[in-house]
Amino acid sequence: MQEAISDIVWELGNQKDIISTDPEDLHAHGYSSWSTVNPDELPVAVAYPRTTEHVATIVRVCHRHRVPVIPFSGGTSLEGNFSAPYGGVSIDFAYMNNIIQVNKDDMDVIVQPSVGWRDLNDELVKLGTGLFFPVDPGPTARIGGMIGTNCSGTNAVRYGTMKDWVINLTVVLSDGQIIKTRRRPRKSSAGYNLNSLFVGSEGTLGIVTEGEWRITQPFSTLKLAVLPEETSVAVVTFPSIRHAASAAASIMQAAIPMQCLEIMDEVQMRVVNLSKFTAPRVWVEKPTLFLKFAGTKGSVKEQIQLVEKITANHKGGNFEFAKDEQEQQLLWSARKESLWSMLSLRKEGEDVWSTDVAVPLSRLADIIEVSKKEMDELGLFASILGHIGDGNFHESIMYNKNDESERAKVEACVKNMVRLAIEMDGTCTGEHGVGWGKKESLLWEVGSETVGVMATIKNSLDPRWILNPGKIMEVPWERQDDHSAAKD
Amino acid sequence: MQEAISDIVWELGNQKDIISTDPEDLHAHGYSSWSTVNPDELPVAVAYPRTTEHVATIVRVCHRHRVPVIPFSGGTSLEGNFSAPYGGVSIDFAYMNNIIQVNKDDMDVIVQPSVGWRDLNDELVKLGTGLFFPVDPGPTARIGGMIGTNCSGTNAVRYGTMKDWVINLTVVLSDGQIIKTRRRPRKSSAGYNLNSLFVGSEGTLGIVTEGEWRITQPFSTLKLAVLPEETSVAVVTFPSIRHAASAAASIMQAAIPMQCLEIMDEVQMRVVNLSKFTAPRVWVEKPTLFLKFAGTKGSVKEQIQLVEKITANHKGGNFEFAKDEQEQQLLWSARKESLWSMLSLRKEGEDVWSTDVAVPLSRLADIIEVSKKEMDELGLFASILGHIGDGNFHESIMYNKNDESERAKVEACVKNMVRLAIEMDGTCTGEHGVGWGKKESLLWEVGSETVGVMATIKNSLDPRWILNPGKIMEVPWERQDDHSAAKD
Repeated sequence: MQEAISDIVWELGNQKDIISTDPEDLHAHGYSSWSTVNPDELPVAVAYPRTTEHVATIVRVCHRHRVPVIPFSGGTSLEGNFSAPYGGVSIDFAYMNNIIQVNKDDMDVIVQPSVGWRDLNDELVKLGTGLFFPVDPGPTARIGGMIGTNCSGTNAVRYGTMKDWVINLTVVLSDGQIIKTRRRPRKSSAGYNLNSLFVGSEGTLGIVTEGEWRITQPFSTLKLAVLPEETSVAVVTFPSIRHAASAAASIMQAAIPMQCLEIMDEVQMRVVNLSKFTAPRVWVEKPTLFLKFAGTKGSVKEQIQLVEKITANHKGGNFEFAKDEQEQQLLWSARKESLWSMLSLRKEGEDVWSTDVAVPLSRLADIIEVSKKEMDELGLFASILGHIGDGNFHESIMYNKNDESERAKVEACVKNMVRLAIEMDGTCTGEHGVGWGKKESLLWEVGSETVGVMATIKNSLDPRWILNPGKIMEVPWERQDDHSAAKD
Repeated sequence: MQEAISDIVWELGNQKDIISTDPEDLHAHGYSSWSTVNPDELPVAVAYPRTTEHVATIVRVCHRHRVPVIPFSGGTSLEGNFSAPYGGVSIDFAYMNNIIQVNKDDMDVIVQPSVGWRDLNDELVKLGTGLFFPVDPGPTARIGGMIGTNCSGTNAVRYGTMKDWVINLTVVLSDGQIIKTRRRPRKSSAGYNLNSLFVGSEGTLGIVTEGEWRITQPFSTLKLAVLPEETSVAVVTFPSIRHAASAAASIMQAAIPMQCLEIMDEVQMRVVNLSKFTAPRVWVEKPTLFLKFAGTKGSVKEQIQLVEKITANHKGGNFEFAKDEQEQQLLWSARKESLWSMLSLRKEGEDVWSTDVAVPLSRLADIIEVSKKEMDELGLFASILGHIGDGNFHESIMYNKNDESERAKVEACVKNMVRLAIEMDGTCTGEHGVGWGKKESLLWEVGSETVGVMATIKNSLDPRWILNPGKIMEVPWERQDDHSAAKD
């Protein structure tokens, strides 16, 4: 691996800040306190490319030396997605953070991997486009990682997930070759859908980067939706989490075009109040649905009437609206920041296990009731929240990682939720990805034959298994030896 | 190939109607008068499986003998997608045409490949679900081929294309192994998006079939949208096709949530009148936008006001609404049947060249103006129509195939449109697929490196290149020899 680092420095010239081997930097790129799991290894170097050609050079060198490369952008992932279990070089896109072009008339935008989705939206407002990018995961997530995990967020129930917004990608392949998946048509039937293959592949098939190699051509052209005309935000409380989940399923089954439909249990509502995000307003600490309506004025009014009726049928009460736009934003921020608010309440030595599943709508109330009960029985500070309109929710559990029996209990509880979701025909992850943490769950979910197809594709595009190895699926034994040899 | 046929009969028992070698049958499964191109070869047999296991057996035998297999459902494709340039066995799903399960609460449905999308919708109405399946390609298209080409239709501008509706697929791989891509979550980040890889791969990576191997599990679970509350259909005419295309782009840029937004030139309007679909009503024979509005009553009213204003800015006039639901349906049928109406006007010996492209919205008026001009200069019966809201349109040109110079002129004209679309950052096919006819165009569009990635994936999943060989990309020379050997 040291040879690879020397070669990278040699090939890219003695540019300052291209390669770091600072121990703190290595730690920050191989360990995450938000992650459910962290392998013992760290990357041996962090590379800071400025261009796609830099990335291609780095990958080509690593390919020659059979050294792993792991892409890194916002660093907010939860399943060890950017960890370095086989060492290698972490590629941090910190300096590739430009919005290259905004095509208002085509409603698309060209961006680099380290652009944050909130910065992108701020810029679109500043330019007066009237457009926005709707995919809204954790506040500090960036485009590169959002592509990696096929992320979603609160807007997904209305606007879909990351895969639905990518028009094309510039990708560095495992041997350093640069390709572009597509041009800029709004739809296409031309050949295999490489966009959807790379999106969600967590950097294991290619490294998504920027498009300097064709100056007029975009790297990652994201379709832009238009800002809705009227928005209204409300909360409604329920006597139990089961009632709240049932109401959410009924709203979706009535096909009301919700902008967002989120659930938070009484613990999370307490966290919102404690965080004082919406102070002086204090919310009832009961299982709650967060509702965002959007559309023309007339349609928002109609939607609200329908939803009030449905929630009342599920014993929903206290239907409260944010009183103005500022309170709307505060309330929604409280929801968006909920994981971070919870993290800020951690005591010394505590960790959080935060993971997600998704199930068909008809099973939502069942799984959420059982999971909440099992989670409460742990006797720990723990909560359920999530994108309930997609059948997707998260458990966040605080625990002491150094207490082995506590850690084991938490892991068993979470794995049971995953197993239950799969038995109910759901998925082990609705939006966080498989990463290092859920490879076993993916096998439970789709079976070894289907993971085998994924491995066949992986092997064909990355025969040396250098691209983010150990994520989504196990590295075959013979390749593990390769990586160990490179490390020694 | 004869050995393969004997083996299939032997393995599946002497069941009647499993294998046909009737010459008319072979012709119907290897030649299409709607197709832009037809290779000289035909399949040597047509297999009629009843179950996924039958399909697996057929593929396993063909894998052993290195014989091509080509899936066939509705037979409506336009680019030679089901042709048999290397002979082989056509798998006709005629007997696998069941709607296996409708999950109303989860809003999904389990279907087999030969279910027609109109039959599916009729059934959903009959069951009183209030749900429908929105992807609406040619009237006689069936689910299997719709998956193969990642088709769309008039509803795509609102609801997206086929890939956006598939929850999971049961697939027979090239060696006869059966896999299922996913369970039934509404969204997932679990591993590679195999759904989107198989959708649009035209049967070259695996054969999508039904799910008897896990009785409670669906084969192809298609998300169902809810029927909108109010629908309104209108036409508006323009002085030129450029004006019509500009108006369409402006409507999209204003982000009005159109249900459908179609264009038809004056020739197609004449065809509608000639077809007497909407008789006694006769439409003005000018370039026309077909508009379908849907939503709540209030929002439809708002949409119509906005669209009237925009079209007026582009010299649109004669804004006319269908007067009742029956006329709405007739008018929309006229649009949907337009290709078939045109075909019915063919004279003896005439063929039709019908092909599609898509470009970014900002280039729509440019390409459509040039294409229309070049097409008119041919002096043939020819028209432009299409899903203009997606930047997607079709040329249909009648010509005499036996007149070599006429055929060459038509081919040059169509290829020029494709080249222009690609230069404008568009795609060589928005919805028909690459098939046998557009392999060269795909190379122009994405380049040999990107087609190389597709070929690498193809080769990894189908190392003997038996699955629909010769479609999307060329068969490597060494595999062509294999197929020739098998044939001899």
